[in-house]
Amino acid sequence: MTSYWNDFPGMPEALEKVSGIINSSSASENPVIFGGLSAILNGDGKLLRPGLLVIASQFGSALKYNSEKCYHLAAAIEMLHVATLIHDDVIDDSPLRRGQPSVHTRYGKQNAVLMGDFLLSRCFILVSEYSSQEQALALARAVSVICSMEIEQNSDRYQADTSVRRYFKKIMGKTALLFSLACYVGAAEAKAPAASAARLRRAGYNMGMAFQIIDDILDYAGTAETVRKALGNDFKEGIVTLPLICALKMDRSGELKKLTVPGQFALADRGQVIALVRESGGIEAARNCAKKYTDRALREISLLPGGAPRDMLEKLTQRLLVRDY
Amino acid sequence: MTSYWNDFPGMPEALEKVSGIINSSSASENPVIFGGLSAILNGDGKLLRPGLLVIASQFGSALKYNSEKCYHLAAAIEMLHVATLIHDDVIDDSPLRRGQPSVHTRYGKQNAVLMGDFLLSRCFILVSEYSSQEQALALARAVSVICSMEIEQNSDRYQADTSVRRYFKKIMGKTALLFSLACYVGAAEAKAPAASAARLRRAGYNMGMAFQIIDDILDYAGTAETVRKALGNDFKEGIVTLPLICALKMDRSGELKKLTVPGQFALADRGQVIALVRESGGIEAARNCAKKYTDRALREISLLPGGAPRDMLEKLTQRLLVRDY
Repeated sequence: MTSYWNDFPGMPEALEKVSGIINSSSASENPVIFGGLSAILNGDGKLLRPGLLVIASQFGSALKYNSEKCYHLAAAIEMLHVATLIHDDVIDDSPLRRGQPSVHTRYGKQNAVLMGDFLLSRCFILVSEYSSQEQALALARAVSVICSMEIEQNSDRYQADTSVRRYFKKIMGKTALLFSLACYVGAAEAKAPAASAARLRRAGYNMGMAFQIIDDILDYAGTAETVRKALGNDFKEGIVTLPLICALKMDRSGELKKLTVPGQFALADRGQVIALVRESGGIEAARNCAKKYTDRALREISLLPGGAPRDMLEKLTQRLLVRDY
Repeated sequence: MTSYWNDFPGMPEALEKVSGIINSSSASENPVIFGGLSAILNGDGKLLRPGLLVIASQFGSALKYNSEKCYHLAAAIEMLHVATLIHDDVIDDSPLRRGQPSVHTRYGKQNAVLMGDFLLSRCFILVSEYSSQEQALALARAVSVICSMEIEQNSDRYQADTSVRRYFKKIMGKTALLFSLACYVGAAEAKAPAASAARLRRAGYNMGMAFQIIDDILDYAGTAETVRKALGNDFKEGIVTLPLICALKMDRSGELKKLTVPGQFALADRGQVIALVRESGGIEAARNCAKKYTDRALREISLLPGGAPRDMLEKLTQRLLVRDY
């Protein structure tokens, strides 16, 4: 799991501690909860959000007194993330997650709903114990926005004529908010200067936007081996992402439009749609967009105080842009 | 909604305020969230948990400075409760809730899962804003126990040979814990003396146990009109409750046992099972049990400082025992 972080000084050790806290904080005597959660929590997640929180905390002066606290908050933010993944997989009926059968596939949808709730409550327990009231509030607000955006995404299913603006709004809530919050919470709890904390918040936001766009690109442009799930999954679920939105704008033959009119969308052949999006240049257009957010993140990062934490953030941001899974 | 409280001095007004806070705190611009939540939040729930919190707060000296805070926490505890109801209905596939179509029936299971999450996060926002860290922690822990017990209930489906002890453990987590917490949080936040707060916690626990047993009895002994849903719903879902457990112990003919052996359970005729449970005396045995918990609650209440709040608690406890819905 922490191999993703092998060339980031100190990070594998820090994230090992975070993983330990995640496991102990979500432990349960109930064999269903124990089995279901340990599979997903010890799967091959990259621990990006806790990693960001840990790095951001290194911009603060209070780190040496507070690294335990910071590891606990990093654990909480990953638990929140995983709770939303479990519920997302129930909602999208996804068979795989992190290269393993999803929780609801193994334990049923009923238990998956409850396990997500359980994990969310354990996350709030950690936050109540280890963070300031301000951060607890920010985290609760984040969950509320994440849910709202997921509900909007649900309402928008099979609507191919969505705007880029609306897409951005949804991925902000779905992904960028939590990246941004991880950076901000780490900085704020370690008492980083307000200017650095604000910059980290913006850097996290832009990284999160780029990250989600790349994720959405991989659903069209990846290979099933590297992505470790079937391609075209978003399309199949009726979720309209940036590559498709861009491709539709450049769809001169009108072929793609025909496949995505209301009533046809759900029936369209995934393979054909993927091919058309690729041919039309939708992938490149989306990739340019991800590049723009990455550049914005890099600019914010370049203005942070220099040193190992800044170098790590820069390297991470660049790596996320060129990832293939 | 507040008509249940009409003969409790000051309570309809207090709960009107609580309802206002529930509505504003769970408001959303999203029409799906707004529609889904306002239907269930403004349905005919009795607002028992917030009512208990409000009454318990009247045992404290700090009430006059803190009634706003107490109304907000009362709202939070009802929102937590409704969030679990929404997820429960998804899990049990129940078509009705509070006399209305359940959220998932109207908005789909996907949105229902997300709406429950949304409401839970809004509950935690309120708690972060208005309560002490100690109560925030207690509430998060309660959610975690509620989920664990629901998962245990799920694992135990169609197992008729469950013990009374195990049944009690589950209803403690499912219901009594939140009743108990409502009483304790109200008392503690209003700075009631520690002895009163502890007594209120125990009174709430015993009231909650009695309440859930009566609920489980009504599924066998009620009428569809008063209960406003089909009888035998628990049995149909494979959930083994006290009337059935008691009836099986007194099942001399062995008829009920035959209907509930593994493999047969799911196929058994609801009407026949209800009739057998009624005939065997399972209802009376369960009712005696509810009476015992009610008596314990009344004893705790009788030892609280006298006055209007104590009178209200006593009346409420007695009313809950003889309710038919």
